[in-house]
Amino acid sequence: MRGEILSVGTELLLGQITNTNARYLAERLAAAGVFVYHQVTVGDNPERLRAVYAVALQRADVVIATGGLGPTYDDLTKEVLADVLGVQLVQDEEALATLRGWFAAKGVAFGAIQEKQTMKPDGAELLPNPRGTAPGVLWQRGGQLVALLPGPPNEMRAIFEASVFPRLRGASGEHLVSRRLRIAGIGEAAIQERLSDLMAAENPTVAPYAKLAEVELRISARAPSDAAAEALLGPVALEVRRRLGYHVYGEGDEQLHDACGKALGAAGLTVATAESVTGGLVAERLTRVPGASAYMRGAAVVYALEEKERQLGIDPQRIGDGVSAELALEMARAVKERFSAQVGIATCGFAGPDGRQVGLSYIAVAGALGEKVRELRAHGDRQEIRERIAQAALSLLWERLQRKE
Amino acid sequence: MRGEILSVGTELLLGQITNTNARYLAERLAAAGVFVYHQVTVGDNPERLRAVYAVALQRADVVIATGGLGPTYDDLTKEVLADVLGVQLVQDEEALATLRGWFAAKGVAFGAIQEKQTMKPDGAELLPNPRGTAPGVLWQRGGQLVALLPGPPNEMRAIFEASVFPRLRGASGEHLVSRRLRIAGIGEAAIQERLSDLMAAENPTVAPYAKLAEVELRISARAPSDAAAEALLGPVALEVRRRLGYHVYGEGDEQLHDACGKALGAAGLTVATAESVTGGLVAERLTRVPGASAYMRGAAVVYALEEKERQLGIDPQRIGDGVSAELALEMARAVKERFSAQVGIATCGFAGPDGRQVGLSYIAVAGALGEKVRELRAHGDRQEIRERIAQAALSLLWERLQRKE
Repeated sequence: MRGEILSVGTELLLGQITNTNARYLAERLAAAGVFVYHQVTVGDNPERLRAVYAVALQRADVVIATGGLGPTYDDLTKEVLADVLGVQLVQDEEALATLRGWFAAKGVAFGAIQEKQTMKPDGAELLPNPRGTAPGVLWQRGGQLVALLPGPPNEMRAIFEASVFPRLRGASGEHLVSRRLRIAGIGEAAIQERLSDLMAAENPTVAPYAKLAEVELRISARAPSDAAAEALLGPVALEVRRRLGYHVYGEGDEQLHDACGKALGAAGLTVATAESVTGGLVAERLTRVPGASAYMRGAAVVYALEEKERQLGIDPQRIGDGVSAELALEMARAVKERFSAQVGIATCGFAGPDGRQVGLSYIAVAGALGEKVRELRAHGDRQEIRERIAQAALSLLWERLQRKE
Repeated sequence: MRGEILSVGTELLLGQITNTNARYLAERLAAAGVFVYHQVTVGDNPERLRAVYAVALQRADVVIATGGLGPTYDDLTKEVLADVLGVQLVQDEEALATLRGWFAAKGVAFGAIQEKQTMKPDGAELLPNPRGTAPGVLWQRGGQLVALLPGPPNEMRAIFEASVFPRLRGASGEHLVSRRLRIAGIGEAAIQERLSDLMAAENPTVAPYAKLAEVELRISARAPSDAAAEALLGPVALEVRRRLGYHVYGEGDEQLHDACGKALGAAGLTVATAESVTGGLVAERLTRVPGASAYMRGAAVVYALEEKERQLGIDPQRIGDGVSAELALEMARAVKERFSAQVGIATCGFAGPDGRQVGLSYIAVAGALGEKVRELRAHGDRQEIRERIAQAALSLLWERLQRKE
């Protein structure tokens, strides 16, 4: 099946917002076995909107449009679609009653603007919106499917997942299933070397995407059913995990701090961080995880040189210019003591932009997981360097938690 | 002038990457006085690419295409453009010599792949690429302009700014100049109330965009020259600043921590933070700023309840369940003392996702800027709540630095 994604909105044409809806829908249509050949963005002008719809209906089996459905919006999407389909715009009485009830329950006045939201091209179906008031619209005839969805991403996604995706998957007869393995502590080149035969295969495909100081490996299989696709995918994912070992820290949207948090919780270990160059970023990441209080004691951000002595009791002679392997290790040891944690984590380094040796940094772990310090030469701008150092510190913690070196 | 943006790449159609190039170009074309009516994304298929070019050349004066110019890429962009224009693809001898020299200087072998990069449709011009090897292509005839640019955003932007934008601006005769004022500590509704007359005007336009716990106000003026546009824009920006006062903390990409850092530096004040719910985020933001060591002493992240006593010496009776106005103020006072800073900043609260009163939080400032504590009911998911609290803490610091309440 051929797909086309239409995005409606002047703010997209003016470049005021990035079109994240198109990306989301493209990925999901691929997963449903729909091949997207065109994505088109157009404004609220009825002539141009009509022309874009007409072309899309001519060349695609599946047309998904976003934007132009809000209550106060200068929207024409439904009117134009009805026009192109050659049908009338009619009131959906059931949806109208539901919306009236919703407004009454909230004690909000119901007006003509809201009434407009329950109109639909004759023969179409309104799709409930669990996140807002504007329903989606679905029109199906002769193997062709058109869906209109609101522009706000959370509303668009909720309606798409509940009411559009299942029908697409049922219609296409081809299922694409993907898994994303998340990998840290090993570079893209080394991954390619270890997985070159898997990466040369056509189904499942295995492709690495470099992220900041980590790699996402996407494994995708196509088959006539989810179960068949999973059956192709499973052994390859297992083989990747076998070859990369603990470097695969998680799947999907899981982040390295989530994996560390989970592992710390499972091991019943508590941590504290001593941070100079990262300014609290390692602690901030470790506390993003729900339930972080089970393992997180706290952090000493010792940004000023003297605070390394004052807060952590480090001998001034060992502080030097504030960046050394010895200092990082001392910081990790000291913060562990000061916060009565079982594991201490520390960072120091030069984040720039000015000065010599920008990017040179040290990360250390001390305590119940043994002692380990590592030198890093991080690149990028100031914030990128700081993020790379924090990621390296979590990566070191993760390694120690896996007890493999 | 009418514009159209074409994005070429299978990875866009599959939703593997977000189309940030289209947004960038849309914004810049608007600034050059070119009205973008369509954005189209298409894959590397020659038939579909040819059709998309033909339509674009029919309906637009300015066509900017990105993607499909790399050396190893499965690219056809130039071939297809030549075909649609009805001209031959020819070698640019000068560009070939330059690229050969570049490779020789680097000691890298020069092959057929590289030679292909210096081909161009007959009559077109190659645009130098300061960030990579693939040059851009510019074709102009009879008031129509077509530019092909490489897909990597940094290369695309460098070529566009140096070689395309100046010609567009010269051709359109209309200049759009924008300024973005950044506003914190006041909501969108209150801003609209204070600026309703300015927001109703047509030139300059004044429009607010809600961001996380702040608002960006975009003021845009159109005129025949930059100077004339600036002359329209200046008085409106001044009037906005007069009405919103210190709530306008900066312009463009400046962030609230940048503004606070600058103001702390100017005032010669040092700070330290005591953080519970934000886990180090306030300190992390304050140390993102280059030169942060001039004002930043450090932070005590006292995540575990007992650490509030152990690290900051707070009376356990005042700690309670770890969330109160009194506790926030005590934390701000204590951390100021412990780090010998002139100003202490503190946060405590419930970030969820579980438990009662999720979002309830307190932020405090103590020391040389006076004492102030504020209650906040932050909404969103766990990380959004933490970010809102950190932003509110910086906003409170900013207010105190402006000495206006």
